Order: sequence, then C-alpha cells, then structure tokens
Amino acid sequence: MKRTSRDIRTANRYEVLRQIIATSPTSRQELAAATGLSLATVATLVGELLDLGMITEVGFEDSAGGRPRGLVAVNASGGALIGVDIAETYVHVELFDLALNVLARADEDMRPGESRPEQVVSHVAAAVGSVVAQAGIEGARVLGVGVSVPGQVDRDTGISEYAPNWDWHDVPLLDLLAEHIAYPLYLDNPLRACAVAELWFGAARGRGDAVVVNLGTGVGAGLVLGGGLHRGVSNSAGEWGHTTLVLDGRLCHCGNHGCVETYVGAPGIMQHLRELSPGSTLLHPEDQTATIDALAHAVTANDPVAVKVVRDTARYLAAGIADLVNLFNPEVVVLSSWVAATLGEPLLAEVREAVARHALRRPLAATEIVLSPIPTDPVSLGAATFALEGALQSVGQRTARRTAPARSRTAPPS
Amino acid sequence: MKRTSRDIRTANRYEVLRQIIATSPTSRQELAAATGLSLATVATLVGELLDLGMITEVGFEDSAGGRPRGLVAVNASGGALIGVDIAETYVHVELFDLALNVLARADEDMRPGESRPEQVVSHVAAAVGSVVAQAGIEGARVLGVGVSVPGQVDRDTGISEYAPNWDWHDVPLLDLLAEHIAYPLYLDNPLRACAVAELWFGAARGRGDAVVVNLGTGVGAGLVLGGGLHRGVSNSAGEWGHTTLVLDGRLCHCGNHGCVETYVGAPGIMQHLRELSPGSTLLHPEDQTATIDALAHAVTANDPVAVKVVRDTARYLAAGIADLVNLFNPEVVVLSSWVAATLGEPLLAEVREAVARHALRRPLAATEIVLSPIPTDPVSLGAATFALEGALQSVGQRTARRTAPARSRTAPPS
Repeated sequence: MKRTSRDIRTANRYEVLRQIIATSPTSRQELAAATGLSLATVATLVGELLDLGMITEVGFEDSAGGRPRGLVAVNASGGALIGVDIAETYVHVELFDLALNVLARADEDMRPGESRPEQVVSHVAAAVGSVVAQAGIEGARVLGVGVSVPGQVDRDTGISEYAPNWDWHDVPLLDLLAEHIAYPLYLDNPLRACAVAELWFGAARGRGDAVVVNLGTGVGAGLVLGGGLHRGVSNSAGEWGHTTLVLDGRLCHCGNHGCVETYVGAPGIMQHLRELSPGSTLLHPEDQTATIDALAHAVTANDPVAVKVVRDTARYLAAGIADLVNLFNPEVVVLSSWVAATLGEPLLAEVREAVARHALRRPLAATEIVLSPIPTDPVSLGAATFALEGALQSVGQRTARRTAPARSRTAPPS
Repeated sequence: MKRTSRDIRTANRYEVLRQIIATSPTSRQELAAATGLSLATVATLVGELLDLGMITEVGFEDSAGGRPRGLVAVNASGGALIGVDIAETYVHVELFDLALNVLARADEDMRPGESRPEQVVSHVAAAVGSVVAQAGIEGARVLGVGVSVPGQVDRDTGISEYAPNWDWHDVPLLDLLAEHIAYPLYLDNPLRACAVAELWFGAARGRGDAVVVNLGTGVGAGLVLGGGLHRGVSNSAGEWGHTTLVLDGRLCHCGNHGCVETYVGAPGIMQHLRELSPGSTLLHPEDQTATIDALAHAVTANDPVAVKVVRDTARYLAAGIADLVNLFNPEVVVLSSWVAATLGEPLLAEVREAVARHALRRPLAATEIVLSPIPTDPVSLGAATFALEGALQSVGQRTARRTAPARSRTAPPS
C-alpha cells in the first residue's frame, strides 16, 4: 500500500510509544533524538498519549542548569491488553498491562480432531474469561483482544479465509468470537504476530529492515520493511512457508509441491525423523510438542539420529533463509516461535553455518541471524500488540473506536 | 532502512515530478488530489521544481468562475539525462530530455571475452560521447549519467562489488568512468533500473507494492514497496535470481545450486534447448540474443521444440513468481527486460496459467501479471531515472550536487 500522511502519523505514534515503553522514564528531548522526529511532533504525540492515559508525567530530569525537562513513563495500569494465540493443538491466552508485563495466563488444550470453529471459539472464550478473572480487573479497562489464527485472514472483515491445517474456508471468526467476548477484537495470523512482537519488543526494534521467521506447525516470514510491518495489498504477505524449495518435492497441504513448510514445519521435521528412524523413541506420533522436545534433549545428549534430523532441518531452513537474505537484504533475521525456541542454539549454529554457504556475500555481510530474545510466547505478545496498535490508531477518532477493524458487542464482558 | 523526514520529502518530490511528467499540463490542485499530499506541500515542491528549471508555468486552466488555476508542465528542454545499460554482450546508451523522450541512442557490441573493466569503460565513454554529439546539446545541460551494471554494486562508493558473469570483484567502476566522463555519475544494477523505470513510467506507477521481474542474461526482482524502491540495508535487495528453486539443482555461477537464474536466465534457456534438441537450428551457441529471437519466431510457427522450451521456462518462472506473490502480496508483477520482451505474449500466457496453479488463492486474487508497457529499453530508461532522482535529491543542497553519490571530475565534458 502507498503510505498516506495519516499512515505516517500512526507510524510515528507507534514509534514514540514503543520508545517510551523501552526506556521509561524518558523526556521529549530524548524521544526526539531516538526517533528522529522533531521536538514539536514528539510533544504533540506525547500529549495524545497522556490524554489517552497510556503514559503519565513522572517528574523532572536533573539538569545541569537550564530548564528542567519533564519526564514521562508508560502508565502500566492505564489499561489491559489480551493476546490470544490459537495454534493447531492449543489455545494460549495472556493478559498484559500497558508495559506489556504478563498479569495472567490461561491455556486450553485442543484434542486432535477438535477443529470446528465453534469448538475453537469456546476454548478462546473460556481462556479470555479466565485471564480477566485471574487479573481481577474491570472489563472496562481492557482496551482490546488481539487474536492470532493460523492461515490467511482478512483482518478488516475478521474472516479466517483459509486455515490449511483445519481446512477452514471463510470462517467469520471475529463474529463468532464477538458472541462471547465484549472487548474490541483484532484478528491476524502468527507470522505477523511474531513480526510485530519483534518490532515492538524484540530483535527488530529500531531496525529498518528485518525478517522474522516463524517456526511452528506452520511456517512464515513476517516482513519488517522501512521500520513497519509489510502486509501486502491484501494482508497476506510473508507466506514464505509456501514458497518452493524443492521443485516437484513433497506434497504440501496448500496443493503445491516442495514448499519450505513441508520440510521445516514441525510435521515436516517429524516426517524426516520417521523416515530416518521409523521406530525412534523420540517420535510421539500424535504430539508435535513432545517430539520436538525429545529431539532437543537428544541433541544435547549427542544422539546421532537427533543430530542428523536437526542438521538436515537446518540445511533446508538455511536454503530458505538465504533466499530471504538475497531478496530483502535485511539487517536481521530472527528465528521465532516454539520450534525455534525449543531447538534453540544447536539449530541456530547449524543455520548460521549453512546460510553462509548459500547466500550472496554482500547481503550476507549485512545480516545477523538471531534467536528471538522474547522470553514469553511471542504470538500472544504480538496479538496483544495488535490490540495496542488498534487503540493507538483510533486516536483522534475515539468515537469510532468500537467500529471496524475492531469488533465488539455492547453486552457486558463474559 | 528506516525512513527519515528527509527521505519522505525526497519521496514526495519524486512523486510530484512523476505525476507532472505523466499528466502535463496540470495544476497544483490536481497534483494534490493525485498524490494525497496537502496543497501547501505540493506548492512548496512545485516551487522547488520551478527553481530548478525542471518544470515551467504554462498559463491558466479554464475555470467556471472562481480563481483561475495556474498550470505547470515538465520543461523538456530544462536538462538532459543519460542512461547507460551495460550488459554482458553490449553497451546501450540513450540520451533523454526531461520528459524522458529519447533524443539519441548509441550501441557498442562487446565480443565474447571482452570483459576487462577498461574495455567496458572505453565502450561506455565512446557511446556517451556519441549521444551527446548526436543530440547537439551543451555539456552543461546534462544533469547526470546513470549507469546500470550487472551484479552487486555499492552505489555510494561507485564500486562494482561482484559481477558474476565477468567474475569482477571490487572494480571501482565509477572512478574509472570519471576519467572519461565529466558529468555526475550514478551507479546501480539492471534489476533496480527496471524497477525504477516501471515505478516512474510503467506498470508500477501509482502502485504501492509491485515486483518487477527482470529477465535477461541475469535475472532479478526489483521490489517496489510502499510506493518506493526497496533497496535493503546494503543496496542488494532483489536478488531473486539467486534464490533456490531446485534444492541441489543446477550449479550456478554464484556457487549455489538450483538458483532461479540457472533455469530462466538466457543461458539457462539455451541449456534447456541444447538438452532437449542438441542439434537444433534454433541454437546459436555464442549468441544469446539470436537464440532467444529464434525461439520466439519458432513458437509463433508452432515448432514443438520451441513450444516445449518456452512452456518449461514458463513453468520454472511461474514457480519462482508464485514465491514472490506469496511473499510480497503485490498488486502487480511486471515481466521486464529483453528476454521477456522477446518471448512476449506466449511466455506471459503460460506464466499466468502456471502461477495460478502454484500461488495461494488470497495473494493470487490481488495480483495481476503483465509485460512491461515501456516501449524502449527499460534498463537505460531506469538508469537515466537514477540520474533524475540524483538531481532531485540534491535540491536544497545544490552546492553538494557534485559530491557522492554523484561522481564527476571538474574537467570539461569529453
């Protein structure tokens, strides 16, 4: 999309709040220096955030002579944000204060086959109710609920257009959720949730161009370009999992052959383990998490099969990451989501070595490859960030806050 | 890179001049409506362009009552721009007026093996001298010379860091050229030249997100994102030719295996023809242009070998283009450069059909795939556009016009 002056104002608002969250307390002068915005622009944006109650004045900086500078800090108790991570096997929900500290968590397991939209919605509603109750906050203080669901989503209409692992087509997920949840709702998918989490709070913060590689059951690459999330013309950019790595290779559930995801997504890794060692005790056929955990432990113990599976996975992954390095020439590639977190440093070491063999020298020299530094679930953090962005986008049009893209009903919180 | 307010001013200046070139004569009001900029901003930018002599006042619009609106138009004779397309087998140079009409052309053939930097530089100098003489213009009116050279370039230092087809490493090309050419010089590569040509004058004009697929001896994908060229952190974004299509496939001169370029670049197409039909009369072993021309004619005549070569090429190309569609979710994919122009509609038809089989439904629905509408050489047009952008970037710092990234010597024009 072309950027309008309104987009730029919104992006500046994000940038200033991001900086305040990272460095509270801070002064308008420091914010101007850190963001490259003029002091007048910063003062206007700080005024808006003060009006919203998202930040607060916290006194004055010591100054060696000269006029003392007012300090602002994030107002942690100025509101609550909820992030919902719907995965193929679980629903994980976290409630955050405005400094993005986790105040409450709830998990719901989904049994294999439990994949009807109504079943998923009922798990989400239960978990959201649970975190609000645990945190003991008034419903009115919840600024919004961000929901991440795998696959392609239309975030304006709140429709899950295509969720390949469940074979969902055009499910009106936000309307279904709004029957149970009375807060403003924001829908998007895990690859973009992970990217936004890194952009606000992780390894992409302050970077112009970054690629956040999301390794879970599904696989994607969230694109941070020019300091903002690149969504593409219909919010489906980043489908790196469905780019071809092996022409005429493994059949993918998307209908294509040889997609990156079929080799480096959790089911692809399990398939590789099964092919290498059919009776392996590492393999838990119905449980991806248990299998990847077992692999990670076995690698630490130098188990040869596990070492080979991780090395081969890293090789596939590296060929795909080298493609991203050559195409985007980013400052940083971040490995995120649960498979990356579980396989950790051994995977990272193999990936770095193999990317160096595949990528062109010039973009390679400009790129570092890191594991996500976010200690909690990046998907629910990113989903909560969508709700935060939604609240910030509505500045200056506060009467419209409860209309699209946020959705809510007027009923009291469930 | 993160966008600074200076980047945004420069981008707005580009946008206004682009619109004036496309719709001369036009009013400030129409420009504001077309660009989304405020009337005050447009008035400032128009004032700068008038001061530079790039545009001129051309009277008033008829208005049904109300104050008559002043009209501006591009000042075609306000300067000249030179675009240099250095390819593996030729040097092609065009001289343009400021409306980007071609005033003169010169070609130099390069024989196989004629690949030392000094040889290439001497061809470029001869052709540049020729176009200036043909056009009969004063040297002082040449605003700059844009030079496109294959491979990876550092445009700030003017160094050709790596040109794979000639095995150039760290050639100080701009310094070598500046010994013969006295105008400001701007260096970049064909994939970005093609992208900028489409962005200013072709199928990407007015589009937010576009991918310009450059099909020649080398292959690349220029990325137009958010209405501007995405260069990446070290100006090497877009190396789609060196992304993996067939893991462990054909050896590429970049050292990797299975790169897109080895299948859809002109030498890759010739290799396929040779494998299918070793004694084919279509094959001109030392002449890529003649071979691709012969293929194009034979396809029109329904020659089964030629039809199969083009279909197979389209299939490789489509798998790679589907990757770009899934990753970027662009509004348009433009097929540019000489191989695309020569194979034309038959290639396009096959590509469209095959992309539809490979890409995900949601991004596919948002994308059109077209041949470049630019009737002349897009690389030299794009290279001239780099010189135009360079001249526009120097607004407000005109004393610095003759410093980096433009390079020139103080000697009179050769």
